[in-house]
Amino acid sequence: MSRMVVIYNRPADPAAFDKHYFETHVPLAKQLPGLTGYEVSRGPIIGRMTGDTPYMIATLHFESMQAMQQAFASEIGKACAADRRLFAPNDADSVMFLFDAEAA
Amino acid sequence: MSRMVVIYNRPADPAAFDKHYFETHVPLAKQLPGLTGYEVSRGPIIGRMTGDTPYMIATLHFESMQAMQQAFASEIGKACAADRRLFAPNDADSVMFLFDAEAA
Repeated sequence: MSRMVVIYNRPADPAAFDKHYFETHVPLAKQLPGLTGYEVSRGPIIGRMTGDTPYMIATLHFESMQAMQQAFASEIGKACAADRRLFAPNDADSVMFLFDAEAA
Repeated sequence: MSRMVVIYNRPADPAAFDKHYFETHVPLAKQLPGLTGYEVSRGPIIGRMTGDTPYMIATLHFESMQAMQQAFASEIGKACAADRRLFAPNDADSVMFLFDAEAA
């Protein structure tokens, strides 16, 4: 199984971010071919870290890295990436990690 | 549902880290009361970020933030925290996020 974890920093306008994320991005991303799960944090994130605590953490599930790559290369995947640039346009607005994972 | 995501930076000795993590920490953490799932990244993590790519990402699942807090307050929870300080002793060695999550 493979995972994409996206960590969003606090946006300038959280209400506008939430509206765009839940009303536009989620319905689009849920159409990604091969998506087997999609979790989004709700409420405050408690962090043990230096610096600002993230605003939101999203985790997308796929069967494999290959399935994830195929999803991102699809028309829906391209539309998701383009849409993300509307609500989190800058490199500093989010961090993204892609990896294989196993049950411990 | 609630999640704890732990992001480990690359250790000085990855082989020693892996040995401790999988042989000692995982068997201990799997005894956490209320743990409903535990995923660990395997292999390289692909990141879109500034700075170094993490070495490992672990995700622990609980039913609620309350269940997570109770787990951490338990004897096993305290033993897990003490054990983590053996293989990732410094604040800069890892980042930890605790949050409620919902299926998107």
